[in-house]
Amino acid sequence: MTTRFRQPLEPAFFDGVQERVRARLVEEGFDALLTDQTEDVAYLTGFFHHPSERPVAVWLGADGRCVLMTPELERENALRQDARAEIVSYAEFPGIEAPFASLARAVDRVGGGDRMRVGFTTQMTNERQTAAMSQLPDAVFTATTLVTRARYRKAPEEIALHREAARVTDVMLEAGVDFLRAAIEAGGELPSESELASHVTGTGVRTMYAEHDDVIVVSPLAGGLVYAGANSAFPHGLPSGYRLRDGDTFMLSLGCAVGGRFVEGERTFVLGTPTTEQRLYHDTIRRAQEIGGAAIRPGAECRQANATCLSVIEEAGLGHYIRHRQGHGIGLGMHEPPWLEAGDATPLEPGMVVSNEPGIYIPGHAGYRISDSMLVTETGSEPLTAFPRGLDDCTIAL
Amino acid sequence: MTTRFRQPLEPAFFDGVQERVRARLVEEGFDALLTDQTEDVAYLTGFFHHPSERPVAVWLGADGRCVLMTPELERENALRQDARAEIVSYAEFPGIEAPFASLARAVDRVGGGDRMRVGFTTQMTNERQTAAMSQLPDAVFTATTLVTRARYRKAPEEIALHREAARVTDVMLEAGVDFLRAAIEAGGELPSESELASHVTGTGVRTMYAEHDDVIVVSPLAGGLVYAGANSAFPHGLPSGYRLRDGDTFMLSLGCAVGGRFVEGERTFVLGTPTTEQRLYHDTIRRAQEIGGAAIRPGAECRQANATCLSVIEEAGLGHYIRHRQGHGIGLGMHEPPWLEAGDATPLEPGMVVSNEPGIYIPGHAGYRISDSMLVTETGSEPLTAFPRGLDDCTIAL
Repeated sequence: MTTRFRQPLEPAFFDGVQERVRARLVEEGFDALLTDQTEDVAYLTGFFHHPSERPVAVWLGADGRCVLMTPELERENALRQDARAEIVSYAEFPGIEAPFASLARAVDRVGGGDRMRVGFTTQMTNERQTAAMSQLPDAVFTATTLVTRARYRKAPEEIALHREAARVTDVMLEAGVDFLRAAIEAGGELPSESELASHVTGTGVRTMYAEHDDVIVVSPLAGGLVYAGANSAFPHGLPSGYRLRDGDTFMLSLGCAVGGRFVEGERTFVLGTPTTEQRLYHDTIRRAQEIGGAAIRPGAECRQANATCLSVIEEAGLGHYIRHRQGHGIGLGMHEPPWLEAGDATPLEPGMVVSNEPGIYIPGHAGYRISDSMLVTETGSEPLTAFPRGLDDCTIAL
Repeated sequence: MTTRFRQPLEPAFFDGVQERVRARLVEEGFDALLTDQTEDVAYLTGFFHHPSERPVAVWLGADGRCVLMTPELERENALRQDARAEIVSYAEFPGIEAPFASLARAVDRVGGGDRMRVGFTTQMTNERQTAAMSQLPDAVFTATTLVTRARYRKAPEEIALHREAARVTDVMLEAGVDFLRAAIEAGGELPSESELASHVTGTGVRTMYAEHDDVIVVSPLAGGLVYAGANSAFPHGLPSGYRLRDGDTFMLSLGCAVGGRFVEGERTFVLGTPTTEQRLYHDTIRRAQEIGGAAIRPGAECRQANATCLSVIEEAGLGHYIRHRQGHGIGLGMHEPPWLEAGDATPLEPGMVVSNEPGIYIPGHAGYRISDSMLVTETGSEPLTAFPRGLDDCTIAL
């Protein structure tokens, strides 16, 4: 009997995060930091919520304070989650009194000529920014990516969550293949994209509830996108009622979040006997993903890894089928910086987690993509997901 | 045999929308409008996409142009959806060249001292705003809620989509009750919150694929939140592994989107024999919802309907259990303005669709909420969902 996995992080984790972010904000010349970005809020305080029109924000002061502003609707939820912050709440949105007035009252130290320098996240909408500024008219607001950058390197406690998310993602990939094989053996209709998607998603959710305590529910908790045949040639398509058929290339694009930390695992399969064309496409992205993975190592710039990875596809003469970069950061956000792309010169560092997911999309035929979430280590990187990647392992005989 | 329901709207709908929004922007003194809000993009052009870090934006010019900017990744998807706009694409994000450069090239008429007055949506993040402004340095940018307001009154074609979404939502509510009744009859374990949620969500998705053509996949396409017992006392909780038991109050909070237009339908049930306390709570919100529904009529201000609705709960002596307003607008957004809340003086108008969902939340016991999406008519309003609301109809005997 293994012990159950507990998802929420300990208070000491948040104390450490706040201390590190506070040191950075002082270094960058701010008196306080304001963020209403959902994942920033979870990162700084441990409070997870569904974003909506009702603002939720964290104020982190150089003076040592951490204030979480929530609507009244979320106050008990924040208490239940042991949010590591002083909580202030406003009645409702839009409110007779503006929501940010509750935060301003809590942090406005003098209520007058105090020109605090407040760094606010670049992810804040114009509406929120205007609302916050009007409640702290004497503060000087400057946009900053400070928390975004603080989230790049994952702490050991976070890496443990990512590893468990990868294990569940592998379970989901296996469940998808088993589901299809069972349908083939049963001899009836093959499943549709959305039936497969719903099965693997259910498997992910059930696995967590069965094996984890205090599951942190983010949206999606587990997700399965399944694309088959020509539909898979649209990189960001969504599962349809299309039913798999002999000869199809299909993709299981799966993932889940443990303790709010995401992992993706994507594999491309062939149903039936692969043609020469299918083998060429599959082998090419397999090689691009392998070489691209080796290029993910500390000190390398994101754009270098990207160039190394995509050049494998270009050299195979398939560059015109590329539709996207090598990958992206992954953490509390399913997609977050840094970006493994031509325009991002960020050097990779140990503790970063990034996706390695080259793909090609052949209009009218199919798409091919293999993805693992990679942990950057001291000496290189390692894929967190383990499901086999090669075509022989990803062929489902009929 | 009924005819199949086709989800996408016709080109003429988008031509009409663009014409109306163009008239407004000229009236408000703009030369062009810029929005990267996902639902605004769908409203103006018919292009639905998953929002991500890659900007997608619409430029609507007083000169008659409508330009849709997408990443290369989404270009074929936009073509497939017959987006009603000129499409310009950028390579990737963040890109060697900034994404908004592609849009700027397409719309910069003189490329010099042309001081265009551009209204941009208040929903744009600081990052996007900065990126757009830097590519059109001679334009004067002003935040505006113009498209948000244009979306308030739904066109007849949109109302038809809402009606169909309401029908599917009723099917989902019935499926939830049937699923629970079948489990009771089978005599085994009762379902958990997440099992019920997954069943009703699957029912919604399957119903659409079985009966509709060209299903427009938005996220979520159909969604079921199920809360039971003390967990239901958190208004925005999420389904857990908690298994229903005798005496529980539980809530089915369901909804779906047809052609991207959302409807919510929420009912509160009692499993077993209702206690006096459960009946008091249920009857009170039932009455608040009925009286609140009658207060939704053209000419009434949103805050008046809200006050009328919530006063029923206050007069019953249960005001301390209120955690939120009466409701919110619903359309391409699951939540969108206007807000049926104390701070919103917007007058209701025929063609608006708003939720009517008073609720009370008794810590440690349960939550009670009944919701219908209401269409404001010429003379009053009508609920689009029809599932019975009273406790006798919402008691599941054991």
